[in-house]
Amino acid sequence: MSLLVVGTMAFDAIETPFGKTDKIIGGAATYIGLAASYFYKNINMVSVVGEDFPNESMDMLKKHGLKLDGVQVKMGQKSFFWSGRYHTDMNSRDTLATELNVLADFDPVVPENCREVEFLMLGNLMPSVQQKVMAQLKKRPKLIVLDTMNFWMDTAYEDLVKTISQVDVLTINDGEARQLSGEYSLVKAAQKILAMGPKVLIIKKGEHGALLFNKEQVFFAPALPLEDVFDPTGAGDSFAGGFVGYLAETKDISFENMKRAIIFGSAMASFTVEKFGVERLVGLTQEAVDERVQEFIDLVQFDISLV
Amino acid sequence: MSLLVVGTMAFDAIETPFGKTDKIIGGAATYIGLAASYFYKNINMVSVVGEDFPNESMDMLKKHGLKLDGVQVKMGQKSFFWSGRYHTDMNSRDTLATELNVLADFDPVVPENCREVEFLMLGNLMPSVQQKVMAQLKKRPKLIVLDTMNFWMDTAYEDLVKTISQVDVLTINDGEARQLSGEYSLVKAAQKILAMGPKVLIIKKGEHGALLFNKEQVFFAPALPLEDVFDPTGAGDSFAGGFVGYLAETKDISFENMKRAIIFGSAMASFTVEKFGVERLVGLTQEAVDERVQEFIDLVQFDISLV
Repeated sequence: MSLLVVGTMAFDAIETPFGKTDKIIGGAATYIGLAASYFYKNINMVSVVGEDFPNESMDMLKKHGLKLDGVQVKMGQKSFFWSGRYHTDMNSRDTLATELNVLADFDPVVPENCREVEFLMLGNLMPSVQQKVMAQLKKRPKLIVLDTMNFWMDTAYEDLVKTISQVDVLTINDGEARQLSGEYSLVKAAQKILAMGPKVLIIKKGEHGALLFNKEQVFFAPALPLEDVFDPTGAGDSFAGGFVGYLAETKDISFENMKRAIIFGSAMASFTVEKFGVERLVGLTQEAVDERVQEFIDLVQFDISLV
Repeated sequence: MSLLVVGTMAFDAIETPFGKTDKIIGGAATYIGLAASYFYKNINMVSVVGEDFPNESMDMLKKHGLKLDGVQVKMGQKSFFWSGRYHTDMNSRDTLATELNVLADFDPVVPENCREVEFLMLGNLMPSVQQKVMAQLKKRPKLIVLDTMNFWMDTAYEDLVKTISQVDVLTINDGEARQLSGEYSLVKAAQKILAMGPKVLIIKKGEHGALLFNKEQVFFAPALPLEDVFDPTGAGDSFAGGFVGYLAETKDISFENMKRAIIFGSAMASFTVEKFGVERLVGLTQEAVDERVQEFIDLVQFDISLV
């Protein structure tokens, strides 16, 4: 019984209207693992870093209970680095630099004791690398969740479509759902994408919340209205981490339970955007997480009984 | 005990990516009155039309129980006319024509038997005209709801701010909330706008739902994900109509009841956008309204119990 998280562990340098950072740690797997760690304890990470990735950060991840046996450290090489600048609306950004470094020839190796995992979270990565991970598993996980992005729609479409066809849950944002389906209406887009294979589609709309679709049902989870979205980096990954961590803990992959999971995911994303990088996501108390989830309940629950 | 609705009754000509119309009836009061009529039966309209406003449309409004004694018909003159073209995202539009006609010197007269109303809904109009209506009332209503738009922020700012200071509930869209407050964050914008006088602020976000704020609380109502938003004209007015109609019927202006009211308002808006103009809003059954509200319940209700 475990959750395997695959994705980048990396450095980011971020500019937002509220300030800028030097190189800080980031990466999809970092955010996913941290967010999931508040719900589930048996999490194995598969990633790759360079010699420059800080030991203190490795220790911090371990303190959150994350198992790093599957994280390759490439001596003499540098970690993946991304730098970007967000616009005022925080929904759009310019990439200032992308240095693949160790990611350029990442050959993931799933540790022997993780090849029969129940839950697999494929963070955003080249689809062919995501495929390699699935190929190493001895049996199909109970649930495979895939996060991806428009970049792969542009550069690796065939691989991506094949990968999508093999997973249970796909998470993408609204623009990506439109691009992938060719439909402007998200309702129509969802049905087209579900016809590509996944049983469930989550469309992330940033500050506008997220939609959860299967072929018959739809559920909407709001984003928490915040005084300021300080830095949106990692919000989608934190969302996915909270989502899959909650599912792994409850071992219930029904649509009803996914509704709850998407609320926990939204809560984790709402923490992440409050500070730069992973700062807010590190060392949260259970109490703080519960309080935040309660804010979501208060935000949307109402009491109408139709006769 | 009654609800007074003040606003335009007019002609629109609309182009959307799905088609275009000739002159069809529209106007804020038309949408508000129709939407409210599904919840409350004692509704008086104050408006002005020209000789060209169709008798059949007047009859249709009467059939919905709306009292038209306060609707001035100006013989030899033409009704207000607006023409616009929506872009693909349906959130932005170009105005193609605005002919004020009878609206240019509209001097509203509240019928004698409506001067002690309990609920007043001021649809979007020149703030000085909204003032004139309030000045004719013999006692202050239990609840005054004001809808307005950015046009008045640009052209009648002082009048608008004075009007806003006199009402209980203000409804505007997200861009307008940002313009009025000078704050990008809607949470900060809400607090600044509430400091201008209203006890409650509703920020409409179109396809992204609506936020209800008072000084201590926030509630979020989603928009229904629709296959197509066919024509967004009148959505905000229908929303306001459902909202105030439900409040008038229940006579409960607590924040808890406003949560319910905003869901009923959202349900009415979701009908309006499914066809051109008021077409979908006319002659709905109680069953259809209930079914739609149930869709909203299913869309957002989840069951999380924190220990």
